[in-house]
Amino acid sequence: MAKVAMVLSGCGVNDGSEIHEAVSMLLHLSRAGAMCEFFAPDIDQTDVIDHRRGKPAPGEQRNVLTESARIARGKIAPLSELNADAYDALFFPGGFGAAKNLCDFASKGADCSVNPDVEKAVRAFRKAEKPIGMCCIAPVIAAKLFGKAAGGDGCSLTVGGRTDASAAVEKMGAAHVEKPVGEAVVDEKNLLVTTPAYMCDAKVHEVYDGIGAMVSKTLELARTGAPA
Amino acid sequence: MAKVAMVLSGCGVNDGSEIHEAVSMLLHLSRAGAMCEFFAPDIDQTDVIDHRRGKPAPGEQRNVLTESARIARGKIAPLSELNADAYDALFFPGGFGAAKNLCDFASKGADCSVNPDVEKAVRAFRKAEKPIGMCCIAPVIAAKLFGKAAGGDGCSLTVGGRTDASAAVEKMGAAHVEKPVGEAVVDEKNLLVTTPAYMCDAKVHEVYDGIGAMVSKTLELARTGAPA
Repeated sequence: MAKVAMVLSGCGVNDGSEIHEAVSMLLHLSRAGAMCEFFAPDIDQTDVIDHRRGKPAPGEQRNVLTESARIARGKIAPLSELNADAYDALFFPGGFGAAKNLCDFASKGADCSVNPDVEKAVRAFRKAEKPIGMCCIAPVIAAKLFGKAAGGDGCSLTVGGRTDASAAVEKMGAAHVEKPVGEAVVDEKNLLVTTPAYMCDAKVHEVYDGIGAMVSKTLELARTGAPA
Repeated sequence: MAKVAMVLSGCGVNDGSEIHEAVSMLLHLSRAGAMCEFFAPDIDQTDVIDHRRGKPAPGEQRNVLTESARIARGKIAPLSELNADAYDALFFPGGFGAAKNLCDFASKGADCSVNPDVEKAVRAFRKAEKPIGMCCIAPVIAAKLFGKAAGGDGCSLTVGGRTDASAAVEKMGAAHVEKPVGEAVVDEKNLLVTTPAYMCDAKVHEVYDGIGAMVSKTLELARTGAPA
């Protein structure tokens, strides 16, 4: 049975993990018989958005790990404790939290920096040749860490269609592949699998199906390992 | 195309809607081609639980509608505005929010009272002979409103196995039917469809499948209408 780690960034599309994406990912992992354990950085959220009104909630502060625990039903640990040796694959759902709390792409674009615990986790799985599955805006983290602009060898990924986000991905030295909601990009060299999810204007069951394709290919890479 | 309403009670299993259940319900509705619109009472939550530590978050107060908007991605309205004429069915996911914010079953058991907007909505759909689908602990609301103890004609429902919750359901004058996670109880007289979801100790994809059975039967009742 595969054992995987999922990194959350809060609870809610505008300031945390996109809830539908995180649950879809969990459902596909569960169906495939994989055990999923949750992690999140133990840091303050960059902001708190009132999701009813679509604007900042004045005076509120929330913790990324504490809010992520709502999706994880309490079973979650600080990302600093994640040990790549204990898992077969690493997963990141999207939501603005991935671009506000796991890195600062939402405000800095291609000039973003990545949270140190997130960077440590991603590099540890990459070094151990264990696959990483990402959806929605989360792939910008891979673009930043593996892109040629950071001195890396480059990587291939999708954030959906041609947008400001895909332009920033290319500026970071990653190859952007346009994909519809139902498909995933597999970068075999980097063991990186990505799907656009809600980066496309899609129905929730289409997002679910695209995430299913991503999860399936990531678990397949976890079984077969890195290509020779 | 069916148009349905889903009533949320916050965002998180311990003080709001159970997130996996709400998203599973939404996924099955979307797959079936139903349009789902969200509602929640515009009231303070009964409490705020720190889901990381599993205990009350001191000094915090949150609004049920505002937090529910995280699951609804912002598209949500006050429950007081729900007009049963505009919808074909009504849905309630579970989570402690259903037993703390939509009624006070969590503290009062069989002596609970139901939030007035929730009662109004449930009675309006019942009167219009439009079906109601519920999961997890949410069926206690139907037990309270349709049970013989409240002067009703009684109803049949499930909250899973034999527990304190099922005993309270019976005390309210409803017939409790034991069911495993994958099955739903259809009360044709009351057009009420229920499934245990996380009332059972089950994997998330099993919860998803049980909710699928409940959604499917509820939408079928919406098409065929009340039996003669």
